[in-house]
Amino acid sequence: MGSWTDVGNTVCPIARSLAEVGDRWTMLILRELFMDNNRFEEIQAQTEASSQMLAMRLKRLEADGLVARHPYSKRPLRHEYRLTEKGRAFYPVILALRSWGETWCKADHEGIAVRLTHRKCGHDIGLHATCPSCGETFERQDLDAELSPSFAEERAKRHAAFKSRNG
Amino acid sequence: MGSWTDVGNTVCPIARSLAEVGDRWTMLILRELFMDNNRFEEIQAQTEASSQMLAMRLKRLEADGLVARHPYSKRPLRHEYRLTEKGRAFYPVILALRSWGETWCKADHEGIAVRLTHRKCGHDIGLHATCPSCGETFERQDLDAELSPSFAEERAKRHAAFKSRNG
Repeated sequence: MGSWTDVGNTVCPIARSLAEVGDRWTMLILRELFMDNNRFEEIQAQTEASSQMLAMRLKRLEADGLVARHPYSKRPLRHEYRLTEKGRAFYPVILALRSWGETWCKADHEGIAVRLTHRKCGHDIGLHATCPSCGETFERQDLDAELSPSFAEERAKRHAAFKSRNG
Repeated sequence: MGSWTDVGNTVCPIARSLAEVGDRWTMLILRELFMDNNRFEEIQAQTEASSQMLAMRLKRLEADGLVARHPYSKRPLRHEYRLTEKGRAFYPVILALRSWGETWCKADHEGIAVRLTHRKCGHDIGLHATCPSCGETFERQDLDAELSPSFAEERAKRHAAFKSRNG
C-alpha cells in the first residue's frame, strides 16, 4: 500500500475508503458531525483531539469532499463544518461500527449509548442497519437520537472539562 | 480519549470499536481474513505491511478475541489465523466500507472489484447491505465472491512481488 494517500495502486474499495477515513480521529470527527456537533471547539471537546490534529483532519476531510465549511459568524469570521452528500453517505459505516461495538465491546450491564428511532414509522431501530419494522434503509436525518443518561453525562463532563482547560 | 486502549472512559460504541479495529492495517488484515486468506505471509503480501506491523496487529486482534490461531503444520509448527464469532460479526462494517468506497472513491470506468452473490437465492447483492432480492442480512459465508479481472491481476502481482522479494 505504501502511502495511504497513494490509492491509485489498488482497485479495492475498502482500501480506497480507508485511505480517506481509516483513522480513529477521523472516524470520531465524523461521529460528531453525524451528532450535529459542527463547531471546531465542540468537536475538539468531545474527541479530545489536539487542535492541530483536529485541524489537519478536518482539512483532509474537506479536501476529500466529505466536509464543507459554512460561515456562522462574520465578525470574527467563524466556520462550522458540515457533512456533504459524500460525507452523509458514510452513515452506514458508522451504524455498523455502532452495532458491532454495542454487541461485542461492552458488558451487558452498560446498555445502549444512543437510542435511534426511525422518525417515519416511530420504531426503535435497535442495532439493525435497516428498519426492523418497515424495512427501510436510512440516512442519519431519518433517525431521532436519544442519548442514554450515562452518555449524556459523559459528554457534558467532556464539554465542561474542555471549557475549564480553555477558559 | 487519551490512549486508544483505554476505552473504559466512554460508553460510545463507535469509540469502543475503533479502540480495537480503528487502524487501517487492522482493517486490511480483517479484509484478508474475510477473503479466506489466512496465512501470515499471504496476508503480508496482500496488505504490504512489514512483518513486525503485521505480527503486532494479529497479536492484538487475538487478544481482543477477533482472531484465533490454528495450527496447519506440526513440523515446523505453523499457524493460520481465523476469524472468531466476534471477528465474523464485523462483516457489516467491511461491507459498508466496500459500498461507500465503490460509490464515492472510484471513477465510473473502474467497475466493482468484487462481485458478491447471495448463495441462497443466487442474486448479485450489488452494493446493498441486505439482499436486494430476498431481504436477508448475511454473514460472509452466505456470499460467493468473484474478483474482477483487474483486482485478480492486482492480487496476483502483489503475491509474485512478495515472493520475489522474500525468496
